[in-house]
Amino acid sequence: MDLHILDHKLRVTSISKTGLQQYTHPLIKLIFLRNRTRCKFFSLTETPENYTVVLDEEGFKELQPSEHLQVEGSTWLPLNVVSNGNTSSSSQAVGVTKIAKSVIAPLAEQHVSVFMLSTYQTDFILVREKDLSVVVETLVEEFNIFREEGGESVPVHSQDACNGLQRNGREVPHATVHPVLIPENQFCVMSLDPDTLPAIATTLIDVLFYSNSPKEGASVDQDMKCIKFFSFSLIDGYVSLVMDTEAQRQFPADLLFTSSSGELWRMARIGGQPLGFDECGIVAQISQPLADSDISAYYISTFSFDHALVIPDHPACVYFAILICWHSVCRGYVLV
Amino acid sequence: MDLHILDHKLRVTSISKTGLQQYTHPLIKLIFLRNRTRCKFFSLTETPENYTVVLDEEGFKELQPSEHLQVEGSTWLPLNVVSNGNTSSSSQAVGVTKIAKSVIAPLAEQHVSVFMLSTYQTDFILVREKDLSVVVETLVEEFNIFREEGGESVPVHSQDACNGLQRNGREVPHATVHPVLIPENQFCVMSLDPDTLPAIATTLIDVLFYSNSPKEGASVDQDMKCIKFFSFSLIDGYVSLVMDTEAQRQFPADLLFTSSSGELWRMARIGGQPLGFDECGIVAQISQPLADSDISAYYISTFSFDHALVIPDHPACVYFAILICWHSVCRGYVLV
Repeated sequence: MDLHILDHKLRVTSISKTGLQQYTHPLIKLIFLRNRTRCKFFSLTETPENYTVVLDEEGFKELQPSEHLQVEGSTWLPLNVVSNGNTSSSSQAVGVTKIAKSVIAPLAEQHVSVFMLSTYQTDFILVREKDLSVVVETLVEEFNIFREEGGESVPVHSQDACNGLQRNGREVPHATVHPVLIPENQFCVMSLDPDTLPAIATTLIDVLFYSNSPKEGASVDQDMKCIKFFSFSLIDGYVSLVMDTEAQRQFPADLLFTSSSGELWRMARIGGQPLGFDECGIVAQISQPLADSDISAYYISTFSFDHALVIPDHPACVYFAILICWHSVCRGYVLV
Repeated sequence: MDLHILDHKLRVTSISKTGLQQYTHPLIKLIFLRNRTRCKFFSLTETPENYTVVLDEEGFKELQPSEHLQVEGSTWLPLNVVSNGNTSSSSQAVGVTKIAKSVIAPLAEQHVSVFMLSTYQTDFILVREKDLSVVVETLVEEFNIFREEGGESVPVHSQDACNGLQRNGREVPHATVHPVLIPENQFCVMSLDPDTLPAIATTLIDVLFYSNSPKEGASVDQDMKCIKFFSFSLIDGYVSLVMDTEAQRQFPADLLFTSSSGELWRMARIGGQPLGFDECGIVAQISQPLADSDISAYYISTFSFDHALVIPDHPACVYFAILICWHSVCRGYVLV
């Protein structure tokens, strides 16, 4: 298996619900006007709490500082696992499940924080630039590691990166057990030809910028059975959308596509209080048991919480799968 | 001829060039998301100085006060002349020329300020609500006047409005002669099916919100041979666009339509310093001589300047037509 360190330097930011208006101008430019920006990595995810925006330095320049913009202090690098054809993995699962044992668990053991961003096309594992040497040391046995630079893939060897491994060999930390919220809405993971993005522009603008729930700016109501979750990404020219079935109905059915089986996914939101960026092992706690059971899962981190999307083998077992996995690892409590 | 006082109460506002970003959110809503607003009269015109936004009270609510928003203090009402079939006019001219003698000149004589807004479909004559009684008294001999109220056309008689006519019978004031700038760009006046507005959304957004000239926020450079002028209106469901040929090339040719002859228009910008809203007779000074020569003209007032669009009989005579008309009335000086 190959691991690529992609040629993007990313910032992880959050725009408050009430601040969205003043960021409409740069966000619309980044989403729709590719000729006017050199941003190549852009992701916007609406949750009930805020809008998480992950974007490269070219895109980040467009966001003027304000009280409504929070910026995580680090530069993050996206990693991407590429099957090079002769993989021996027998797993049929997709998403974070495929990389749970080979990438997520080893990084958690080394106390490396990861920020996950699953898309229709692939799964990006974001790590802090300052953790790169540890990441390379940790993963070099399992992977051929390449660093993408100016369109070239340059092999990376571990001798350049031998610091920080005094923490090597620790267990996945089990310290914190986070509550899980499982809303009732069902989600689809979709894509479209980027050339047809203009055709859905007004719908996408409407959904992203004007569909505030009645309780604007409020945190999740514990009584709320469905939660707002909408994710758009435009990364290296590929569009990915994650939305619930209610949002999906607003889009023309002939332009968006999903996998042939057209699965609907259920979501587990991880975290009762905002998770922060320093705790390690959260993705590992969720993804390892899913991998043990070979259950496909997407995983989308946001500024406040993590989100796992799981497709049940049959409609009733999503709770079962998540609960069993969760309890088997964490023995924690679960809000359903 | 019938004169309709339309059922819109309008505000005339200006957004500064540097303030456009913070008004992108409400403006995109007013232009593209008809389901989310009850605004029925919306016009946005970009000039080198600013963005003039004319809109009804429902739309005006969307614009938050700020240092970047200037609001003319009055409520304005749009008037609209409708030929009722048995007009005896022999004029083939279109636009403000048709109403120069019957509406514009009499109102100027009564010192009523007008704000003109020509569109692809018709010409709106905006007058201050407080001047309505004078307007009715002045025009009631020439027109059957109707006030539109909740979809009904109610006849208006002058007995309800008999104040303010002590000023009756004055000449068109010749006091101020304004310089005229005639840029080299050529303009077209276009429309499109409002249902196809989403298809040009990204292009229209690009042109309106992201095409700032290099000298952002600056006033017109006297050396500048072309000036930025782009007008979009969505009034009672009808779309009208006025743009120069450079902007036109960015739009798909199959969606926008113009009159069958596809004329290109030249513009005369009236005013060296911002005109303000209290001077009367400016439109009359320009439109009367055009009417004398039966020369078609559109006329678009903005927050700072007035703009006449004239189509020459043959390409070389636009200067001739405007200059002769101008000099014959005003004997003033002209910047070309």
